[in-house]
Amino acid sequence: MTDSLARGMWVPVLTPFTADFQPDRPRFIAHCRWLLGQGADGLAVFGTTSEANSLSTGERIGLLDALIDAGIPAQRLLPGTGMCALTDSATLTAHATLNGCRGVLMLPPFYYKNVSEDGLYASFAQVIERVGNSRLKVYLYHIPLVAQVPIGFGLIERLRRDYPSSVVGVKDSSGDGAHTAELIRRFPGMAIFPGAESYLLSALRQGAVGCISATANINAAGIASLIANRDAPDAERQQERISEVRRIVQAYPMIAAMKGLLADALGDPRWRNIRPPLEVLDEARMRKLQSELDAAGFRLPGRSASAAA
Amino acid sequence: MTDSLARGMWVPVLTPFTADFQPDRPRFIAHCRWLLGQGADGLAVFGTTSEANSLSTGERIGLLDALIDAGIPAQRLLPGTGMCALTDSATLTAHATLNGCRGVLMLPPFYYKNVSEDGLYASFAQVIERVGNSRLKVYLYHIPLVAQVPIGFGLIERLRRDYPSSVVGVKDSSGDGAHTAELIRRFPGMAIFPGAESYLLSALRQGAVGCISATANINAAGIASLIANRDAPDAERQQERISEVRRIVQAYPMIAAMKGLLADALGDPRWRNIRPPLEVLDEARMRKLQSELDAAGFRLPGRSASAAA
Repeated sequence: MTDSLARGMWVPVLTPFTADFQPDRPRFIAHCRWLLGQGADGLAVFGTTSEANSLSTGERIGLLDALIDAGIPAQRLLPGTGMCALTDSATLTAHATLNGCRGVLMLPPFYYKNVSEDGLYASFAQVIERVGNSRLKVYLYHIPLVAQVPIGFGLIERLRRDYPSSVVGVKDSSGDGAHTAELIRRFPGMAIFPGAESYLLSALRQGAVGCISATANINAAGIASLIANRDAPDAERQQERISEVRRIVQAYPMIAAMKGLLADALGDPRWRNIRPPLEVLDEARMRKLQSELDAAGFRLPGRSASAAA
Repeated sequence: MTDSLARGMWVPVLTPFTADFQPDRPRFIAHCRWLLGQGADGLAVFGTTSEANSLSTGERIGLLDALIDAGIPAQRLLPGTGMCALTDSATLTAHATLNGCRGVLMLPPFYYKNVSEDGLYASFAQVIERVGNSRLKVYLYHIPLVAQVPIGFGLIERLRRDYPSSVVGVKDSSGDGAHTAELIRRFPGMAIFPGAESYLLSALRQGAVGCISATANINAAGIASLIANRDAPDAERQQERISEVRRIVQAYPMIAAMKGLLADALGDPRWRNIRPPLEVLDEARMRKLQSELDAAGFRLPGRSASAAA
């Protein structure tokens, strides 16, 4: 079974929008193809970085179908399907599973705060039961600073005990290497992904299966290279190099910053579009960001703008 | 125009569910009718207390249509329509407006945290522009402890300046009387509702137009009486009485507690059902709550269980 688990570098794909904030399917497909070409093992579409929580269930289904119709293998897709409403999560999870996605990345319901472990357990269990498909593979998405609803060890233990073939992984976006290490120690059969590449090498050495990181949208090749070369003599140097890029970018609102970098690299200003409540990064900050990346010797790998047309 | 503003007591109506967590329309309609009969001026359906953020857009539309089909006047409805996704908020707001609702109660998009005032402004403005209906009346919903995304004075000023006929009110669920007083002082033309009855009398004397409070689901008559009798000699005593009920109930998870009280008062255990991630209140706590309310001399006004069938 372990072979079927996702591993390697999965990208929480940025979602491009048209000028009136509709999802831009051609650019989305082009970016997904490019990321796979840069070495991504798969695409964790509809993550936090994807502005997924600014998309309706119908919009996510439309984008997912568009990728599959465009020939992106469903086994390379791990869409985010955890929403506030149980019924939305079940609808989207069922759709992804029926269409052969490798799995789903599932946030807890995040509006109500201070909910109990029993309540969260019931929520995940209800989604799994409603989908009722043995092919469903759930990767739990722990991102306490944004969701404000954590996924604790006790909850994972109970879900893993009751749904061992369905609940198979965790994306840990706590930003805390010690927390990731503890997940790896407690859940040896699960696929544990740190949510940032900042401590990727040490996590890999502890048993993490890869990484699902925002900055993979701009530095897929660098992160994939470290995963492939974790035992190489220059692994520590590679870690330092990708960490430096991460440190620079995460000092800015990351989604807007990366959209701006893509827009500039592609000569395609539409890539700046971002759905409210997020905002485009102003020119002054974009120039500062670009100069900091230049000083670090980092350049976004090019691709022809026409690929997005 | 002021005459068209909502005022008085509007109830964030509890949403009943079937055993398999589907919205229970007959019980919902019966509860709404009973609340209007108890003196509610209107129904703020799909609030936090309504578990609205555990409902999909389609489920909210279905429930709203069911109420209107059942003969509840749309002018007595103020549905919650603010969701994470701009497109969901626009869809639901347009539906409510086209169907003649008195207005909508709008949360900010609440997944992304620490978003800017510009970004929140753009989000509300986009919804208003997309709906594009001069009959739209937006009541902004400030509930910082739950949403974790506040609606600040600067944002209200800008929305009020640019959409004076559309942005007409605020529900202040900060729980802070001083904050409500400041809203009243800064926005004299707007309908300001405290989100709890704990400081209702002082808020009314300062210029609040009424109250939108969770506990109106069980104490509608008491709260409506204080609003009607604010100048009566026993107003302070009435305030103390409704505050006591509130203090008792809010020491428990309020939604589950009120559902339990309704279930017991109606002899209708289905009213306990609550959608995950929220949980039914256990029997021991229900008994403790009931004994505290008994000691305070409070009894839920009865209605025949058959009304819910």
